[in-house]
Formats: sequence, C-alpha cells, structure tokens
Amino acid sequence: MSVPYGASRTAATLPATLVAALESLLGPDAVLADADAVEAVTRTCVPVRELASAVVYPSTAEQVQAVLRLASEAGVPVWPVSTGRNWGYGERSACYPGGITLLLERMTRIWHVDETLGYAIVEPGVTYKQLNDHLKQSRSRLWADCAGSTQFASVIGNALDKGRGLTPMADHFGALCGMDVALPDGTLMETGGGEAGNNTVRHLYKWGVGPYLDGLFAQSNLGVVVRAGIWLMPAPAVFDFAAFEYTAGPERLGPFIDDLRELVMQRAIRAHPHLANDFAMMCILSQYPHEALQGRRHLSEAATAAWRRQHGVAAWTFGCGLYGSREEVRYQKRMMRRVLSRYGRVQFIGAAIRDDWFGAIVRWAAPRANRLLGKSPEFTKVMLPAINLFRGIPTDDFVRQAYFKSHRVKPERDIDPARDGCGFVWIGPVVPFTGEHVLKALALTRPIFERHEFDFFVEVIIESARTVIVLVGVFYERHDAADAERARRWYDDARETYRAHGYPPYRATSMSTAEALTGNPPLCDFLGTIKRALDPSGTLAPGRYGVGVPPDRA
Amino acid sequence: MSVPYGASRTAATLPATLVAALESLLGPDAVLADADAVEAVTRTCVPVRELASAVVYPSTAEQVQAVLRLASEAGVPVWPVSTGRNWGYGERSACYPGGITLLLERMTRIWHVDETLGYAIVEPGVTYKQLNDHLKQSRSRLWADCAGSTQFASVIGNALDKGRGLTPMADHFGALCGMDVALPDGTLMETGGGEAGNNTVRHLYKWGVGPYLDGLFAQSNLGVVVRAGIWLMPAPAVFDFAAFEYTAGPERLGPFIDDLRELVMQRAIRAHPHLANDFAMMCILSQYPHEALQGRRHLSEAATAAWRRQHGVAAWTFGCGLYGSREEVRYQKRMMRRVLSRYGRVQFIGAAIRDDWFGAIVRWAAPRANRLLGKSPEFTKVMLPAINLFRGIPTDDFVRQAYFKSHRVKPERDIDPARDGCGFVWIGPVVPFTGEHVLKALALTRPIFERHEFDFFVEVIIESARTVIVLVGVFYERHDAADAERARRWYDDARETYRAHGYPPYRATSMSTAEALTGNPPLCDFLGTIKRALDPSGTLAPGRYGVGVPPDRA
Repeated sequence: MSVPYGASRTAATLPATLVAALESLLGPDAVLADADAVEAVTRTCVPVRELASAVVYPSTAEQVQAVLRLASEAGVPVWPVSTGRNWGYGERSACYPGGITLLLERMTRIWHVDETLGYAIVEPGVTYKQLNDHLKQSRSRLWADCAGSTQFASVIGNALDKGRGLTPMADHFGALCGMDVALPDGTLMETGGGEAGNNTVRHLYKWGVGPYLDGLFAQSNLGVVVRAGIWLMPAPAVFDFAAFEYTAGPERLGPFIDDLRELVMQRAIRAHPHLANDFAMMCILSQYPHEALQGRRHLSEAATAAWRRQHGVAAWTFGCGLYGSREEVRYQKRMMRRVLSRYGRVQFIGAAIRDDWFGAIVRWAAPRANRLLGKSPEFTKVMLPAINLFRGIPTDDFVRQAYFKSHRVKPERDIDPARDGCGFVWIGPVVPFTGEHVLKALALTRPIFERHEFDFFVEVIIESARTVIVLVGVFYERHDAADAERARRWYDDARETYRAHGYPPYRATSMSTAEALTGNPPLCDFLGTIKRALDPSGTLAPGRYGVGVPPDRA
Repeated sequence: MSVPYGASRTAATLPATLVAALESLLGPDAVLADADAVEAVTRTCVPVRELASAVVYPSTAEQVQAVLRLASEAGVPVWPVSTGRNWGYGERSACYPGGITLLLERMTRIWHVDETLGYAIVEPGVTYKQLNDHLKQSRSRLWADCAGSTQFASVIGNALDKGRGLTPMADHFGALCGMDVALPDGTLMETGGGEAGNNTVRHLYKWGVGPYLDGLFAQSNLGVVVRAGIWLMPAPAVFDFAAFEYTAGPERLGPFIDDLRELVMQRAIRAHPHLANDFAMMCILSQYPHEALQGRRHLSEAATAAWRRQHGVAAWTFGCGLYGSREEVRYQKRMMRRVLSRYGRVQFIGAAIRDDWFGAIVRWAAPRANRLLGKSPEFTKVMLPAINLFRGIPTDDFVRQAYFKSHRVKPERDIDPARDGCGFVWIGPVVPFTGEHVLKALALTRPIFERHEFDFFVEVIIESARTVIVLVGVFYERHDAADAERARRWYDDARETYRAHGYPPYRATSMSTAEALTGNPPLCDFLGTIKRALDPSGTLAPGRYGVGVPPDRA
C-alpha cells in the first residue's frame, strides 16, 4: 500500500459530493483534490509515503470541527498535520493510502502574549519564526524556545510530536498548557477542568482539575489541537555560550558522559545541547565528498578521518547556552570549565552576539582564530546562528544539511527538502543518561550503519538530567527506489535493535507509527478501547502511534 | 445519602459470598466488614462522610487486580485510597454510601532507589517518612520532597491528588514518572509506551511513546496506581533558609505579590513557600482563645489583633529554602534581601540546622532573639521543623494545628485528627500569580468567612511563577451537627464563589468531587465516554472527580 519513491502510484479519489461539501465549507482555494497538486504538497524525505486523496486547509477551529463531521459521515479518514515540516519523520504522509490530509498551516493567529505571566496562546499554523518575530516586534522581555531544525515548524505541532529545542525551555510538550481540542465527533473541548470559558488559569496551571488531559493529545489521534497555551521564558540577565570540542580518546567517552550528566543534575548546564559526532558536524560544514567513496557506498574510516582533518572537526562537538544572573552564569562557567577541560577544549564565545565594541572584536577575531586552529571557514558562518538557537531564535541554517548529499550545494534560502527531493530519515531512541548506557547504545548503533553501508551520523541530545536521545539518521537518494529501500531497511533494523534493548524511540515516522505500541499490548488495548469509544468510525488518523487500525488493515 | 456527623447511620452490607471471597483472597486480617471496625478507620475531618460496607487491605498488585475483578463481577464499587491521610480533603470517604474501600497502606515496598539518575520506585503505601528514612539510612545523596502536612502521607497518593511540597521538587505529580496501573477490569498496564517489561527509560523520560498516559490517573478513577517512579533531587551544595515577615501596610500587598512573582520568574526563589496570614500562623503557635469569643462564633478584629500582638505574629509570614551552588545561593540571597526588605523583615537562618559550632550558636541565639522581638516561644519550637520541610524532611509538627480549636492542647505524637474528631476542611483555588488576581481572590474570600462566621485562615502557596494556590480552611466542631452543617455551607459558598470567578480549586473533597467537572460539560462527557469504555460496570470509584455516576445517582 505504501508508495516507495520511483514506484508508480495510484491516488484514490474522494466522492464528488464530499469534495463539493468541503469546497463549500472551506472555499475552493482551500481544497486540493487534484492528484498532482496533492502529490506536490505531500512529498516526504522518508523513503516511503502514502498519497492522500485530498488536502484541505481550514482557517478556523469551526472549520476543523466541520471537516471532522463531514469526513466521519462519509467514512473517510482525516490525517491532521500542523505545518508538516517534520522533515525526516514522515512530514505530511499518513500511515495509510487515501483519505483527507488536514493541513493547519493557515491557522496562524497569535491570540495573546502575556508579558507578566510568560505565555502565549497560538494556533497550530503559528511557526517559530512568526512567534519570534512577534516577540521581537513587541519588544517583549520573553523568549520562545524553537526547534533546532527549521524556523517554519509549527510551535504546537512540534510540541505535540514531543520535539525538542535547545534553551532551558527545550521540552516543547512540557511547555504546552491548556488546549482547545476538536474531538473526532466535531465537539470542541477546552482542557484544564475548570469552568469552560471561565478559567483564569487554564494556560498557567498545568495539571488542572481531574485527570490531566493535555498529554492524551501528544503523539495521538484522539483530537485535533486547534489552539494552545505555550509557556515562554523571560530573557536572562546574562547569556553566554560555550563551544566545546572533545579531544580525549574514545576510552574516556563513558566517564565524560557521566560527568556531563552531573553538570546537568547540578544545574551547571541548563540548556539542552546536542553532542554531535564528526559526521554530523561535517553535514553542516561541507558537502558530501562523493569522490572519496571510491566505489563504496559509505566513506571508509580513512576517508572520514581525512575529511575531518580537512575541516578541523573534533570527534565530538557541542555548543551550549549559559543563562541566569551574573552569579549563576559565573557558577555555570566555573563548573563547565573545570569539568569539560578534562576532556577537550571549551571556549566561552557568547560575547559574539553582543551589539557593542566587544562583540565586534569577537566577531572579527572568530574567523582568524578558526583559521589558526585549522578549521573550515564554515565554522564561522554557523557560529552566530548556533548561538542564537540557544536564545530561541530560529534559523534554517542547520536544516540546510538536508541537501548535503543529494545536492551539489546547499540552497541559501527557501529551504524545503521534501519538495526538493532530499532523502533522509531519523530515529532517536531515549537512553538513560549514564556512560554505560550511552556507550552501549552507540555500540549497538554503529554496526547497523555498517550493515546497511551508511555513514554514521549521531547526535547525543541532552533531554534532561536523566535521559539523552541518541539521534541517528541516514541520507539516501530519494529518487532511487533501491536506495530508498536500503534506507527503509536501515530504519527497521535500528528500530528493532533499540526495541530489543529497551531504548524506545522518542518519535515515530509515518513508516513506523502504526507499530509504535506493539511492544506493550495492555497499553495498546487501553488506548484502542478509548479510541473506539471516542471515534467509533475511526475517522481521525487511525493507526497513528499504534492507536486504532489503519483503514487498509481494518 | 451522606452522613453528617451526629446523624444516625446505616452501613450497607456486602453479600456474604463476596466477603468470603475477599477473605480467601487477602486473608481474614485484611478484610474489615464489621460496621464498627469500618467506622473507626474511615472517619473524616470534613463535615460529611459516606460509610463503606467494607475496607480491604491488599498487599500486592496482584491482590488489587483480583479485588477489582471480584468487585466488578459482584457489581460493588471500589474506592481506592493510598493511606487516606489527606485530612481535610475527604480522607477515606467515598462520594457514595456502601461499597468497598481499597486501602493500599500495606503496599509499602520501595523497589529501587537510583543514586545515579535520581529516582525511586515505590508502592502507594510508602510514606514520606519511610522514603526519607530509607534515604537517610542508605546515606543517599538524594532528597525526596515531602508534603507540608503529615509524614505518614503516601508519596504516590499525595502526588496523584496533585498535592504539593515546599522544595524545588514541590510539584509532586510532576515528579511522578512511569506507573504500573491496575485497570478497572483487573488488567495490569505499564505506562511509558516502550516495550512492556523492557523499557530502560520508563521512570526517566516523562512523555513516553504515543499519548502520555500518567496524567490520566491523577485525580481519577480510571485505574489504581500500584507502583510508580518518583524523581528525587540531589542535595544542593549549599542550603539556606529565609524567614520573612510582612510589615508593610495592606495597601502594598499587591505590589509585593507582583515582586514575589518576579523573584520566582527569575529563579531567585526556587522553593514553594506558603505565605501565611496571621490566623494561619496562630493555629500553629497557640490554641484557640475561646475565652476571647465573648459570645461570637469567630474572633472580632480587635480580639484577633490582641492575640496576634501577644504572640508577635506579623500580618503575613513565610519561610523559604535557598538551594544551589555558593554562587547561586549568593544570588538568591541578594535578590531576596533587596526585594523583600522593601516590605518587611527577612532573616537568613539556615545555619540553624548546621551540625557545627556555628549552628549551635544560631540555635542558642534563636529563642533569645525571638524573646527580644516579642515573639512566642512556639516560634523557636517550629523553626527547625520548618527549615527541615524545605529539605524534604517530613514532620507532624504542623498538622498538629488540626487540634488547635477542638482540643485543649495539641498532642505531641500519634497525630490522627480524623480518628480524634478534629473538624476542618480545605479549599484551594488556583489563582494567576499577579497582585491584581491575588487581591481579588482575597477580597472574594474574606466575606465568605464573615458570612458563615469563621475565622479567616489563608495561605498563599507559590505553585509556580504563573499561579498561586489560595488555600483557605475552617475549623469546626465535628461532633456538633449544626456546626458541621455551617462548615459545609461555608465550603459550598467558597466553591461557588471561586467557580464564578474562574479560580478552580486544585483539589476536590469527598463532598464536592462528584461535581468537580460540572462547569465543563464537553470535558465531563469526554471523560464519561472513556470511563464507560474502560469500566462499563462502573466499579472503580464512580463519580470521583466528576467522572462516571455514583451508584446512588445512577
């Protein structure tokens, strides 16, 4: 049923009466039912996709409710997508063929920003860029966190997918508070448990009255979140930035991970940095050296080492924001310097963003220092965007890496890897934050890459003081069906390996979502019972995250 | 159906076959079906209670599952209670007469404490005292938060009721992570979404895979949590304690509240102090001055003022822990001193707990300083327990206040206000953390006390940087049916007032739980649908927090 790229495809069509009803409801410019138009907006970076029968663009909560009612009556499933820029996780593809894709990118209202209490109320089409621009224009004291990927990701969509950022507010789902949800039967529900329409704390107090329900709509198909509160943080009095390169031997990586955890446990690290391996850094800093393959499908160790030396890349690298009062940042610096310098080089370069003579000097000195250190000029180019991510300022400078293998150069603007045919896919098992577990996860991972002949890309993302996400991914040729199949096999192999060792991926892709809960039958049954009760016709994204049955398997 | 104290009561009895089956399952010492025995263990402090037909004491998850199956077959409802020391919130009373009370206090296993990753796995009978003693005996580097009430409260029960503590880990529900839940049909479910029995991060990573489900079991009747992970915090390098007394005029209370919020927003306050009014302090420091009533039912303003002067109590008082590295605590001190001294007197007396000569001097000086300041000797007596609460060390020193009006003296040990006939009831609306809202909530509250002729008891509890809980309560004569009725009317009046102004109470009592969601019909319907699907026979606590229908109203 799934459509690998390169294979022929047939898009099921909707009943003409349903299309007419949708057009009458939303306006003709908000309904795409033409197969080519649907194809163009639902391309994926992952190696498999399903083609919808139509894509619709509601602008209001009422329209979302009405679409759900129409679809339910017609027995057609609806797959909601906020903006669908979750590149490498499945984008706008359902886990079944046909049906309606509900694309919420026209719901772009910022209903409220509360300077005093630090939150905003937004719709699912609001992007990190829009929210950030809004805060900047209103000279807000508040920062929003952002995704590390694209500035055009949806604030709500990323949070509901349990996406992550980099600042102390990196836990995007944790920062959501109080939702308006369109239920499968078209009812609108306000969470929080106080009086509907008269609850002063629904976006302020997370747990509400009675069972806490917001969590039920994360990675879920039990409702469409049409509006939500999102917490924002006041800009800290002092900000700095640490750039770290791991230069110790691989035998010290375990103790290093343990020391890193203690820094987080003791709040000497408040941000959520990504510890990137050499290959992950090089995706950002260069294009793929196809010429070095010499007939292989992935780089030899020697070729990788040569490439790494050429760009001055360490085995492991991370950047990390420091936040707080002057005393707090002094503490963070003291601890980071003491601990990290045991394992490599740490530099504090936050001054680079300062709008004064000192900032100007740092910016002038940076490329020169990098040259002296034998580093690629690209290091300097990504310095400011990297620092800014830790201030919640979104950018497309890093998602450009999507083009590093399939394209000759990375585009400077108008980044859309799904549209542009870039092939890649991510999997991020959650792993206990100990040297022992992280080393084990890495040791399990490397052979998977070897087996399928991909280059080893990994970022160890600090989720909290208790876990890391070992984010791995492969780049493949999307237009080459055999290479897409290789990527798919790599993914399945990785997924199975992590499952067998008790490291569940923090996020599924459209390829794996229907099987997301198969390892836990009582939980799968529990959610299946709830799903059938709330959505007896199976209208809303059946099969998403293992809940309900996709129509082609029913 | 409800049984006010003093009224006659009739306890429905269970079918003899069911009692026999329960006795055979749990052993005869784990089943109380005798009316007097049931009465003795299910007394409440709130002015209303329902009498169960039996109380059963399972020791294992399997026994909980089996009880649910037996009860479901027999059509008898089951009301689960962890230890039932939620005094003033309804204790062990269901919201309907009859049925089985499932008391989990014999499930006291601490399955695991993880020193590295900072968490424990416990059963619902584990108390704060037990967990704290366990950590102390194993010389753990970890602190558990505790409830401000009694050391014998259940760690899990308090968290599921969304109870609060005082340290930076005060959000007890927020600290729960990963549950084993006995569902109404007797199935055991492991939350977290990874592979059941093989998920290394189920107590480490909160959101899991797919919908986040732990929230569904807070203030809920959808399952019985028989085991859960609870996060612990490493002891900070430096601890200190601020004692603050508000001496400014009432006209500056609004700006004070706003300044307090900013201290929390800027993390200069990390703890969750309770700002207590004069009457709340005096409950702790003395016995009720019945002689000053002069025929009234509550104290006149003049009598309150005289009493206050006599004990040296300020209009508002709080204590607050400081935590972190030496730099962080220095920052907290600097900010607290700067901001709080605009409104009153702040003293840093954390040294009193130090086990050295300096601590000894502070302890020696404290009573003398208090005498000079015109304070009651009781101030000195509660100093150490108060400081210790902010280190997560539980105590019964404060719950002794329950005896301050109904008894001549407070008992020194073996505190059990429900058993001992103390009458009191709490309600805690959640209020946005602004001067404007807090003043409004206080202005709404005072007339309710006046109307029902109770003394004005209030604590403003810092929930987060975004909300406070305005905790209010009354003390009444439990054995006097008219006085119990007066307390009940006060409660209903307060509840209706807060509802009308959009301040939902963070917790219901057994008197109000069945109506907890009436203000939000779509949400009530949503949960009702889920409840019917998971528990078609309505076995598990029907009506709890507004979900499902209590048997006497079905």
